Amino acid sequence: MPFVDLTRAASHGAALTPRSGPVKRSGRLAVRAFRTEQREFLVEGPQGVREALAPPADGRVGPCLEVYASRAATDRHDDLRRAAADAAVAWTVVDDDVIAVLSDTVTPQGLVARCRFVDTSLAALLRRSPRLVAICADVRDPGNAGTVIRCADAAGADGVVLAGSSVDPYNPKTVRASVGSVFHLGLSMTPDVAEAVAAARAAGLSVLAADATADLDLDAADDTQLLELPTAWLFGNEAWGLPDTVRRLADRVVNVPIHGRAESLNLATAAALCLYASARSQRRAPG
Amino acid sequence: MPFVDLTRAASHGAALTPRSGPVKRSGRLAVRAFRTEQREFLVEGPQGVREALAPPADGRVGPCLEVYASRAATDRHDDLRRAAADAAVAWTVVDDDVIAVLSDTVTPQGLVARCRFVDTSLAALLRRSPRLVAICADVRDPGNAGTVIRCADAAGADGVVLAGSSVDPYNPKTVRASVGSVFHLGLSMTPDVAEAVAAARAAGLSVLAADATADLDLDAADDTQLLELPTAWLFGNEAWGLPDTVRRLADRVVNVPIHGRAESLNLATAAALCLYASARSQRRAPG
Repeated sequence: MPFVDLTRAASHGAALTPRSGPVKRSGRLAVRAFRTEQREFLVEGPQGVREALAPPADGRVGPCLEVYASRAATDRHDDLRRAAADAAVAWTVVDDDVIAVLSDTVTPQGLVARCRFVDTSLAALLRRSPRLVAICADVRDPGNAGTVIRCADAAGADGVVLAGSSVDPYNPKTVRASVGSVFHLGLSMTPDVAEAVAAARAAGLSVLAADATADLDLDAADDTQLLELPTAWLFGNEAWGLPDTVRRLADRVVNVPIHGRAESLNLATAAALCLYASARSQRRAPG
Repeated sequence: MPFVDLTRAASHGAALTPRSGPVKRSGRLAVRAFRTEQREFLVEGPQGVREALAPPADGRVGPCLEVYASRAATDRHDDLRRAAADAAVAWTVVDDDVIAVLSDTVTPQGLVARCRFVDTSLAALLRRSPRLVAICADVRDPGNAGTVIRCADAAGADGVVLAGSSVDPYNPKTVRASVGSVFHLGLSMTPDVAEAVAAARAAGLSVLAADATADLDLDAADDTQLLELPTAWLFGNEAWGLPDTVRRLADRVVNVPIHGRAESLNLATAAALCLYASARSQRRAPG
């Protein structure tokens, strides 16, 4: 099995260092242009690496190409080492300074997986007859996008579309904030928000835009059975929301009610409330 | 009105510098021990300063003691300068290096308010016959605690209790994550979680613990009218949840359902879903 110890102490001349070619190439995946060129990204930490190594439900080859692990992480996560062996994924033990090159965090947890891209085309995502999809329009903050992906997964959504000028799902902060959920649901990227909305509608989804200025609130929408329909929720940028032109593309615009005096909710929380309201309503609907 | 320009350019010998006594004293409020001793804290950014300056509903003197502002922020936020004047709060224009001493952020927005503590005793909070309260048990992450406060405010909760070894609500990151909501609802701190639960129950609140291991899920709880009751929600630490001893204190333990394959939800999102479910149920209840 491809288990190799390439720490300086164990491997003498063959050790990987921060200056080794493979390490430098992997480290460059922190930059979007290199990711896009290679169609590969990095996943950090035990939970993310676990999800990267999980056998895909469809029996296909999983996304994980290689795991870099510190000696300490290798000792601590024997389950992951076995999962890598089962998936025929190389596990390379490296020194901490190598992990530091690959890590986006201040205190790395000693585990980084190099993975193939997992997104699909919007057409492919919509062909699977999804009942619940989140479309992020120009969501720029990597942590927010990752948290939306995690919440969408938790709510049982079938996919997340990162549309317009949204951050890409392979940004290290997005991957980390998703806590493995990038591997769980359909992910698509598309530069044109209007096209994404049109495609969702053509696939039979009701398009609901979440917007604080809407007259219809989420609880009232629930009362009208609107949320029972297969739905694509449209979420806007964290700072400026949805532009008029995009909001007008939706079938309905819905606000999450602010019952107290808070000025607003953050994007991921509002998304969670919308997606869970749809999930509850769809699950309760007769049939 | 107490508007003074103490930048080096404007005030010559009287300028405030990072080494001036009042600046150093205010800067120390970043440390909990100094905050506790002074019973004062700092609020950063326009939204937080706006809420600090808003006249309290009960006609009492507001919490804001003083605003430090850069020249640029003073020019940009004339509305806040007028709010400070209306509230008879001193507005001091200072150089950017003074703001940097007072700011917790990498890119300060040029506005920092020094405020009096706004928390009340648990007894006082419960005397107001609250219908919805969040009790944080050992919530340590400052950003999470602030986001819970913001979500609780949005859901119309009457108060948030930071119990056990929870972070204090005046931590700069907590204040920032609350986006002004620390000024909107009742805040209490209490070292003993069991005491907080007992007091909530004695005040007529049903105590619901949010816990991923519970048999009863939030949607099912909603079906039983359980959520219509005046409720104190008990939320545990972000990493290890609620210890058995604390969970057992609750009337019921409720989980937020994970419909997809996400491993969990983050604390603030779970709290938002629970609090909004209660708000919806209470608002729909007859009478």
